[in-house]
Amino acid sequence: MNAPNTELLAEERLQVVEQALSNGALAKIRRMLNGGMAPADVAHLLESSPQKDRVVLWNLIESELDGEVLQYLGEEVRAEIVGRMTQGELLNAVAAFETDDLVDLLQELPERVSEQVLQAMDFQDRERIEAVLSYSEDTAGGLMNTDTITVRPDVTLDVAFRFLRRHPTLPDILDNLLVVNRRDEFIGILPLNILLTSDSGLLVRDVMRTETEVLRPDVSSDEVARRFQRMDLVSAPVVSDNNKLLGRITIDDVVDVIKEQAEHALLQLQGLDEDVDLFAPVLRTARRRGVWLGINLLTAFIASAVIGLFEATLQQVVALAVLMPIVASMGGIAGTQSLTIVIRAMALGQITPARGRSLVIKEISVGLLNGIFWSCAVALVAYLWFGDATLGAIIGISIVVNLATAALAGTTLPGLLKRIGVDPALAGGVLLTTITDVVGFFTFLGLAALAF
Amino acid sequence: MNAPNTELLAEERLQVVEQALSNGALAKIRRMLNGGMAPADVAHLLESSPQKDRVVLWNLIESELDGEVLQYLGEEVRAEIVGRMTQGELLNAVAAFETDDLVDLLQELPERVSEQVLQAMDFQDRERIEAVLSYSEDTAGGLMNTDTITVRPDVTLDVAFRFLRRHPTLPDILDNLLVVNRRDEFIGILPLNILLTSDSGLLVRDVMRTETEVLRPDVSSDEVARRFQRMDLVSAPVVSDNNKLLGRITIDDVVDVIKEQAEHALLQLQGLDEDVDLFAPVLRTARRRGVWLGINLLTAFIASAVIGLFEATLQQVVALAVLMPIVASMGGIAGTQSLTIVIRAMALGQITPARGRSLVIKEISVGLLNGIFWSCAVALVAYLWFGDATLGAIIGISIVVNLATAALAGTTLPGLLKRIGVDPALAGGVLLTTITDVVGFFTFLGLAALAF
Repeated sequence: MNAPNTELLAEERLQVVEQALSNGALAKIRRMLNGGMAPADVAHLLESSPQKDRVVLWNLIESELDGEVLQYLGEEVRAEIVGRMTQGELLNAVAAFETDDLVDLLQELPERVSEQVLQAMDFQDRERIEAVLSYSEDTAGGLMNTDTITVRPDVTLDVAFRFLRRHPTLPDILDNLLVVNRRDEFIGILPLNILLTSDSGLLVRDVMRTETEVLRPDVSSDEVARRFQRMDLVSAPVVSDNNKLLGRITIDDVVDVIKEQAEHALLQLQGLDEDVDLFAPVLRTARRRGVWLGINLLTAFIASAVIGLFEATLQQVVALAVLMPIVASMGGIAGTQSLTIVIRAMALGQITPARGRSLVIKEISVGLLNGIFWSCAVALVAYLWFGDATLGAIIGISIVVNLATAALAGTTLPGLLKRIGVDPALAGGVLLTTITDVVGFFTFLGLAALAF
Repeated sequence: MNAPNTELLAEERLQVVEQALSNGALAKIRRMLNGGMAPADVAHLLESSPQKDRVVLWNLIESELDGEVLQYLGEEVRAEIVGRMTQGELLNAVAAFETDDLVDLLQELPERVSEQVLQAMDFQDRERIEAVLSYSEDTAGGLMNTDTITVRPDVTLDVAFRFLRRHPTLPDILDNLLVVNRRDEFIGILPLNILLTSDSGLLVRDVMRTETEVLRPDVSSDEVARRFQRMDLVSAPVVSDNNKLLGRITIDDVVDVIKEQAEHALLQLQGLDEDVDLFAPVLRTARRRGVWLGINLLTAFIASAVIGLFEATLQQVVALAVLMPIVASMGGIAGTQSLTIVIRAMALGQITPARGRSLVIKEISVGLLNGIFWSCAVALVAYLWFGDATLGAIIGISIVVNLATAALAGTTLPGLLKRIGVDPALAGGVLLTTITDVVGFFTFLGLAALAF
């Protein structure tokens, strides 16, 4: 019934290909790749393969499939493969692309190549593409397709329906016809299921829905994703400020935004990017990660400098050196939790200034409660370990102070960074641990310097 | 044209409600909530409000809207609100729920309440619900709806079409009719756009597609999400092992899975959960976070114990105490990056044993390269700071060793944890930093003990 390899899990298919590659059974792979395997699965296979396998696999794919496979590849892997194609191959491959996919690709290509692709298209297509190209990639305008099917409000459903049937093909995702007037101004939507089940003598205007989600082309893709999720949309029209219908956005493109949005902030916190090739060359990966290590090294040196202020005290009470990482680490863990929660809530549009204040109070209360609880435990262990009650008291106080600081920094940093135009996810984690390290070491060693 | 508050961004709407609440302008809020605001937006408003505001807002919502709003709420907030409803209110609210949403809710309710809800339904509905309830929540069976529209292969498109039109209402998301034989066995799909554009004298079997994505009810929801994404599906049939059609899954439900999947591993790494109420009471939040802090505290004590082994050396060379956090922190940062990359690739189904090995080699190479580069920088700074070349050499070697260890641990831990049935995202981060702390401190202080 369905092609046998559809039933294979992604990992199993990977293993089959791996074995065939190592046995040199290229004919088998060729049959598999071109024999009904979904283009998305072929793309997944390419992305999950080291670069040398990738070249072999790509050459086994028949050129008619190239375009479909390219559409499903991530940015970095796609750039690598497109870079190896001739101009003729590329033009062939992109011939069947939808507007938004083509625009994505064009934005990634070197200017010279993308000019050639545009020149090779007919006038109407080029005009459509250039309209979408004029919007930034991460806005509704950049996400939209121009494959709308429009209908006038003053025709009967029977006419609308026969008009629909005259199309030789319809878009894969078609839940609504879009109702526009003579000046191409958007009026409402006519859901296909209403068209199908209503009396065919009714007028479109009698059954269309006017209270519907409409997107302006400059709305951010994040906001588009939120609205699709909140309203369970399958598609939504994009309409200009003067109410002209520009295109529509479909759920398949929004799913990618939703996924990237969910991952983005969390990966950024660790200096990682969601769009990166798992098998990128060692040198390229090392360079990317190296920058991040360098930034974190700077913050580690700042912490060291704080410790350096107290060399004399450390010399006197060596137990301080043994215990001091505990204070810093507790602050870092708790602060990162607050930070992550707040960054995520900001991405979900859950924070206003007033809410922010009550959240700060809540997080600081949580920090103080946990601080008091765990500082008692740590103080007791420190006392039993080193037999010094003063040491126990000092570490206990330092942990309470550092957890409260961590909560305050974790909840307020994202808002402050956003206000000065810095991505909170990118800079927040580093700044936060710098603060908790400095405050942790300074409080702990400072109190010790006073006490001993 | 569209309701004015549709155009408000989520944050703006929140602020309007906040002001109205603090002015006591409840009538204004009541008009806003019940006057055409989307149920999803009402739910978002509730989730973004502290608990006391939430009670006020919920009481302002007209009871006809209760059900729709409940469907869009997250698990924790929904449980809180359902807990305050009478049984009558609850039964009224869930009357219009789709199968999968109702099943979700039933699974969250106390047994006694969910029994009452089931008893209040008619026989056919209850049977359908119980069929879905028999599958685990995170499988295709648990995600599916039973709102399929089926058609026989041996009828003409004209007949299929007239059959479709006879339905008083059709599901909101309807891209395919499902073709089944007399024994209710799944044969293929008839896409609506093919039905609409093909010659109405053709038979269903002539135009239906048989090479299509079919889901078994026990496939995990993660795998469902992957397939929807890879194939750009809007809906997919769920079919039993003996080929009986059980139901279908639609993209709106999968979007939630995709989002949770993307967030899950990354939030888990920080001991956080994706389903949690931002405004949960302080005590509940403190308890949840406290457990995580306690676990991390244990690992911090292990690190301290390692430092404690070298008290004598530390007393002799106090500069070691100043520099030692640098070694541990570099290892933690680099290891967490490798770990995150691997956990994410595992979630995307990109890792096989053979791929895993080449990834380990790649990550260790990256670790060594960055280790050598940054250790030179750190060694130089240490030398200039403390005027001691031996100290510089020791910290340099330790950083190279610790970054290589971090890469090895970060890439292999997830696979090992998965093999023994532990969630790599939950335990991976803690184990990893324990390893990098222990190796970092031990190498650095151990080499120092030998040298000084």
